[in-house]
Formats: sequence, C-alpha cells, structure tokens
Amino acid sequence: MIQNNRNTPAQPRITLVGAGPGDAELITIKGLKALQAADVILYDALVNDELLDFTSEHAVKVYVGKRSGDHSFSQTAVNQLMVDYAINYGHVVRLKGGDPFVFGRGFEEIEFAAAHNIKAEVIPGVSSSISVPGLQQIPVTHRGLSESFWVVTGTTANGNISEDLIAAAKYKATVVVLMGIHKLAEITAVFQAEGKDKLPVAVIQSGTTVNEKIVVGTVETIVQTTRDNGITSPALIVFGEVVSLHPDFKAVKALYDAIA
Amino acid sequence: MIQNNRNTPAQPRITLVGAGPGDAELITIKGLKALQAADVILYDALVNDELLDFTSEHAVKVYVGKRSGDHSFSQTAVNQLMVDYAINYGHVVRLKGGDPFVFGRGFEEIEFAAAHNIKAEVIPGVSSSISVPGLQQIPVTHRGLSESFWVVTGTTANGNISEDLIAAAKYKATVVVLMGIHKLAEITAVFQAEGKDKLPVAVIQSGTTVNEKIVVGTVETIVQTTRDNGITSPALIVFGEVVSLHPDFKAVKALYDAIA
Repeated sequence: MIQNNRNTPAQPRITLVGAGPGDAELITIKGLKALQAADVILYDALVNDELLDFTSEHAVKVYVGKRSGDHSFSQTAVNQLMVDYAINYGHVVRLKGGDPFVFGRGFEEIEFAAAHNIKAEVIPGVSSSISVPGLQQIPVTHRGLSESFWVVTGTTANGNISEDLIAAAKYKATVVVLMGIHKLAEITAVFQAEGKDKLPVAVIQSGTTVNEKIVVGTVETIVQTTRDNGITSPALIVFGEVVSLHPDFKAVKALYDAIA
Repeated sequence: MIQNNRNTPAQPRITLVGAGPGDAELITIKGLKALQAADVILYDALVNDELLDFTSEHAVKVYVGKRSGDHSFSQTAVNQLMVDYAINYGHVVRLKGGDPFVFGRGFEEIEFAAAHNIKAEVIPGVSSSISVPGLQQIPVTHRGLSESFWVVTGTTANGNISEDLIAAAKYKATVVVLMGIHKLAEITAVFQAEGKDKLPVAVIQSGTTVNEKIVVGTVETIVQTTRDNGITSPALIVFGEVVSLHPDFKAVKALYDAIA
C-alpha cells in the first residue's frame, strides 16, 4: 500500500501527458506545466529523463517502464499504481513516450481511472510516427508521392503480423510501423508479396535523441542494411515513395541504376 | 521586393515550426524557442494568434493564410516570400498549423529553400489528426477496437475523393479525414458502399479552441447530425469503432437499440 506522509493529500486526479518522441524540448508547453504541477510522475522507458528535472523537488518519480523481455510492470500493475498514488498523493502525471493514444494503451488507463471515480485528462504529445521521419526530412505526405499515411504496430497483442499491415502493403499510402524492428524480415516479406521489392524504406533508431541512426534502402535491401549498421530497438520503419526524398536515398538509387 | 532597414541581416535560414492543433499551449518548447528567436514569422490561417505574443517585438509578422475560397496566397507566393524574407531579414519561422508535414505542403517549402541554398530545418508539431480526437478522449488506437490508424485528406489536388480514402473504408483501421467537412456526404457514401452504415463517426470542429464542437453518430446519421448542429470548417472526421468510446455515443447507441 502506498502511503503519503502528508496529512491532506490533494484531490486525486490523473493527467496523461505525451512526452514526445525523445528530445526533451519536443514536449508541449501544456505538458511541461502539468509536469511542474504534479505530485507524482509515473514515467515510461521511452521518456527522456531530462524531463524529470522540470518536476517539483517534492514530486515522487516512479519508473514503470517496460522494455521487450522485461515485463516487471504489467499494464494492470501500472493502472493500479496510478490510482493508488492519485488517492494518496493527489495529482499524478502519467508521462508516456510520444502521444498517449498511439499504441500507448492510454485509454485503458483513462478507463481504469474512471472506474475508480478519478478524473483523468489527456495532454497530447508529438507522435514519433510523424515527427521522427519528419526530423529526418521524410514527410509522411507530399504531393505527387503520398496523399495519406497509415500508422501500424509491428507488435500485436497475439504476436502475429497485424492484418492492417498486410492491407497497408497493398496501397500507396506512406506506412509507418512502430515497434516492428524485431520483425523487420517478416514485415518486408509482406511488401515483397505485393511485388514491392523496389519500394523505398527507412529504419530510424532512437529518433530525436543522441543515439539516433537512420538507414535507407528498399524492401529487398533493408533487412541486410539494418543488420549491417547494427540498428536496434527502439526503431520505426517507414515504407513509401516519400523515403526517396531523403538525401541518403540518392546513393541507393545510384547503386540500382548502376546494376540495371 | 522586400527590404530590411537594418544594415546587416543575419545569415538567411528558415525553420518550419508546427504550431499544433489550435490551443497555443500545445506548441512544443522547441517551437516556442524558435518563435522567440525569429526575425520574421510567416503564419497560416489555422495558427493561434496568441502565439504571436511570444515573438520578439522587432519581429516582422506576416499572415500568409489560405482559407477555402480565398486563394490570395498561392503556395508559390508563400515560398517566394519565405526566401525573400530570409535573404533580407535572416531567420524566418514558417509557422504552420498542426505538423508541417501532415498535408502542410511543408516539404515543398523545404525544397524551395534548398533550391535557393538556404538552410531549412523542421520542428515537428502536435498533429490535429491524433490530438483533436485524443482530447475528446477518442483514442486513435485501442486494444480490441483498432490496431492502426490511417490519416487521409478530404481535399485532393484534383478535387476528387482520394483513392486512399476509398481503400481506407474497407478496413478496420481508425480513419481520420482532414479537410473533408465540405465533402462529408461523398465521404460517408464511400463507407456506405462498404456496408458500414452503423460504423461510429465523429466530426470535430475547431478542435482544442474555444470554438470546439463535436458531434457523434454513425455513417448513416452523421451528415444530418452535422448539418443540424451547424458544424463548419475547419473540422476533422473520425471513422471507427474507437468513436464508440466517446460518452455522447451512448445516446446514439440507445436510440439504435430502441429502434431495433
């Protein structure tokens, strides 16, 4: 049981805050203000630690991160901690990487709070799905190349490739795959099955942080290129003609032209 | 020709900044810092005017907005202004609603700057496509309801319904349509053609601002409901089971159950 030393905890409330893609300065002003006002911060693995410097010195900071293979904090445990802290300390900020509703299971936290009669609100964040390609000057939409984008997870609840991803491979939309790096070979096979061997692909690791790395290639080369460059999780994958706008793609194209 | 009274303009450079969905506090810290440091701000119709209060008093502020039916500033004119101001004044911040690369034609501005040897960088913004539904507590993804989301424009360059939208109507992904309110009847007809009369839909006008309005319904009711409630542009449309999570949807469902 979580207990507070203070005699009069504030009214319990919960704010889900999107921390953005990694760079601490990509949090919103509203998100920062919520952090500064929080009694407790529950934060994820993908949240930049620098953001904790902005919190009150009295705030309780609790790491509830999950990384692949380390399931010490289940979603149920996080939900329960969040509510317990709110009841005992007052204002809990649940700080989540990217945007809370993009594969963040944020709505499950909202529902859990509501079930305990605790007011919960959301402050959106900059989603890595758009901003990480964007900061590499790969626009998710661009006239003549892509008039839509489809954001898909590479890690579904049942462990299979998402049916939505199989559908997405059929169209001209830019396809952004989050949490898919461990299944890159399976995912590219889906695009190969659609005859898209030459479609440009980018894999971006740790976007907007000091560990950022990008590789570009095509559906048929990207698995090897990713391996050769030691790209690891967290990483996102972008499939689409818009990737051809990246400066590094010129070299990929030159190689193709030389072979052809 | 744009001319500066100062003798020594700073090195020309351009920063595309995403202003976020409307609420001024949903700009990023990095975006705000760029605004504060800018010599010139070129801003769009969908940008919150309050953001201009954060700029230097010496900064030149230029409105280059386009609204439907008012094409006083073409993209070509904006590009040219941006470059002329950079050459004559130094640091131009191109402040765009949402994220610069989500139907913002941001990459065309980057290309135009590059063609004039002017350094251009991007600071992502909170996209309305994710955040406006999110602030209404409609998550674009939610376990059991949606494992992906597809963001499509309702206004293509040639004026037709996007082929990507016709494809999107076939799947279970959450579909977010930006700039589609003027074609709501045509767009819902695409979903009806897929037999999705009962699919939940939300239309949100002026999300995150004081003029925000939301209506929820189904594919077969939303056109009438939108008209009855006087919803106008700017507005976005969300198609998907996730809309059923909105509190207002309970009334829609109760009505259906009463009829059935």
